[in-house]
Amino acid sequence: MPRRVHNFNAGPAALPLPVLEQVQRDLLDFAGSGMSILELSHRSTTYEEVHHQAIADLRMLLRGSEEYAILFMGGGAQTQFALVPMNLLPARAHADYLITGPWSMTALHEAQKLADARVLWSSANTHFDRVPTPPFDYPLDPQSAYLHYTSNNTIVGTQYAVVPEAGDVPLVCDMSSDFLSRPVEASRFGLIYAGAQKNAGPAGVTIVVVRQDLLERCPADLPSPFSYAQVAAKNSLLNTPPVFAIYIVGLVARYLLEQGGLTAIATHNADKARLLYAAIDASAGFYRGLAQPHSRSLMNVTFRLPTPELETRFLTASSAADLIGLQGHRTAGGLRASLYNAVSLTSVQALAAFMEDFQQRWG
Amino acid sequence: MPRRVHNFNAGPAALPLPVLEQVQRDLLDFAGSGMSILELSHRSTTYEEVHHQAIADLRMLLRGSEEYAILFMGGGAQTQFALVPMNLLPARAHADYLITGPWSMTALHEAQKLADARVLWSSANTHFDRVPTPPFDYPLDPQSAYLHYTSNNTIVGTQYAVVPEAGDVPLVCDMSSDFLSRPVEASRFGLIYAGAQKNAGPAGVTIVVVRQDLLERCPADLPSPFSYAQVAAKNSLLNTPPVFAIYIVGLVARYLLEQGGLTAIATHNADKARLLYAAIDASAGFYRGLAQPHSRSLMNVTFRLPTPELETRFLTASSAADLIGLQGHRTAGGLRASLYNAVSLTSVQALAAFMEDFQQRWG
Repeated sequence: MPRRVHNFNAGPAALPLPVLEQVQRDLLDFAGSGMSILELSHRSTTYEEVHHQAIADLRMLLRGSEEYAILFMGGGAQTQFALVPMNLLPARAHADYLITGPWSMTALHEAQKLADARVLWSSANTHFDRVPTPPFDYPLDPQSAYLHYTSNNTIVGTQYAVVPEAGDVPLVCDMSSDFLSRPVEASRFGLIYAGAQKNAGPAGVTIVVVRQDLLERCPADLPSPFSYAQVAAKNSLLNTPPVFAIYIVGLVARYLLEQGGLTAIATHNADKARLLYAAIDASAGFYRGLAQPHSRSLMNVTFRLPTPELETRFLTASSAADLIGLQGHRTAGGLRASLYNAVSLTSVQALAAFMEDFQQRWG
Repeated sequence: MPRRVHNFNAGPAALPLPVLEQVQRDLLDFAGSGMSILELSHRSTTYEEVHHQAIADLRMLLRGSEEYAILFMGGGAQTQFALVPMNLLPARAHADYLITGPWSMTALHEAQKLADARVLWSSANTHFDRVPTPPFDYPLDPQSAYLHYTSNNTIVGTQYAVVPEAGDVPLVCDMSSDFLSRPVEASRFGLIYAGAQKNAGPAGVTIVVVRQDLLERCPADLPSPFSYAQVAAKNSLLNTPPVFAIYIVGLVARYLLEQGGLTAIATHNADKARLLYAAIDASAGFYRGLAQPHSRSLMNVTFRLPTPELETRFLTASSAADLIGLQGHRTAGGLRASLYNAVSLTSVQALAAFMEDFQQRWG
């Protein structure tokens, strides 16, 4: 048996073990082809089946209608920071952004290189410790090209429990860090994008879900691989796609369906987060969460200890106990446990037990 | 033993079996980390070693000096069709293109969306059956921003045996289909880009080799992931890179070094191509090559048979004999055998023997 640790990495992150085992088993001879999936032509029937099945399974998971195109693109979510305004901002219009962390800030700055992108709401002055909650009282201009937000913020560890209100303005969501972690009300969105490397697969592919009518906005003179309309017209086979990453996204989607789909996954994820936040809340202040309780993320649980020295000691000791990836983001400090889909309840129980034990020793 | 066929795919294509076996062996527990390479943080020391070693090994293969940056990017070579003019074309300058096939034509068209890109030379009127050869007498304007060419043309099967002359104009090369197949005179180039999925690795990462002084041309207001300067400044860790594809590029680079580097590989590749062209030339016209002899590609050997019916019969029979991927590109028709690095001499011998046998039966 290969050694396997408790993986709390913030992304790339844990993948389901049965998926990895299947990849390993099939690596030299995929589906009886006598070739690795890494060696298959993207124009072969064998690969096309993988490609279309991955899209179909994602559509089933999202309960998405044919009104939405599902695309596979390269370049990561940061490329989408630019492609969203390039595609969706008609000349002279503006777009609005909800700013809840460094990633949404970067999305805003990339858009501002290209267009008039405005801050509609921000929690920068409280160190991004919260997201907007209902009632959503930001003054959204109905003429805005779109409203952009980040559904889960990995650095401080906040998450929207409720999809923000956008009226008739297309809602655009960077869902990189909680995509496929809970049900998605697809019909609420104009466009969703997500780097796969948290809950959906490995690094190397970005999934874009876009309402078909918005494709009409894409300027005709965009470089082809940058145009949602052109990528959609070719069903993400405009050029050689990242075959292997899509293959694994397909395996993960199928695995999630077999687990009962996103409702079941959401329950599992909520159980894990509840356990860890309870450990923080029961620590009488030894562990201090960074996020306001009403904005807590179910994906990234962040906390600090009384001193930096204790945090270093915690990291060293947890790592020695095979609890891996707990260092907080360098801009936030402290600790962070990422509890993406493939992190097991067993791993979270091990961490909670470690936290209790560590407090008894050093608290 | 898993079944393995003779893989003549045009890309994604065959990979070295020892590389695939190592990937399979290490898939669940990479370098003693207790995690898959697919689950590692791109900020972890373990991954950073993979990343930097891949760059170092590519640099050694290319005998490239520190004067050149080596980048890993997403989106495939078609994304580079746009990024090259976005980065290298200062306002109001123009660029020149050598047109030797549909891919260089697409590169031109993408550039024309953004800038003044001109055709300096074209073999369109002879169905792209040739590339320019010395003496290079095209009238290159010394003020041109760059001269772009495609070193190997996969569809008709042509290849430059000699790097085209560009004087002091930076030479930009789409080397997607022969990168790492033979020594590269790195100092001749301003910029080289290559999708990995022919000789260097799997689909999902594009390698860019760029002379450092050209980075000063990159406009400051480009979206960050589109800017060679910004990607170079972060050593291709600006955002989450395609970790797995880079890992395999690193394994392939190491494997090629162990085989003796690009000079040894070039000899091996020339031997394979010679064998197959000899089979064509010895067929008394039964097999007709599409490329002019002086422009023949060592990577993609294309040929037709006397009738479309015989071509279909050839494809069916060769496939039944585990000779896979021989259908020509849909725009060129006929047959195509791609002989990238990882295709063995044994596979090419099997194909040559099959061709001789097929001709005796049906010629």
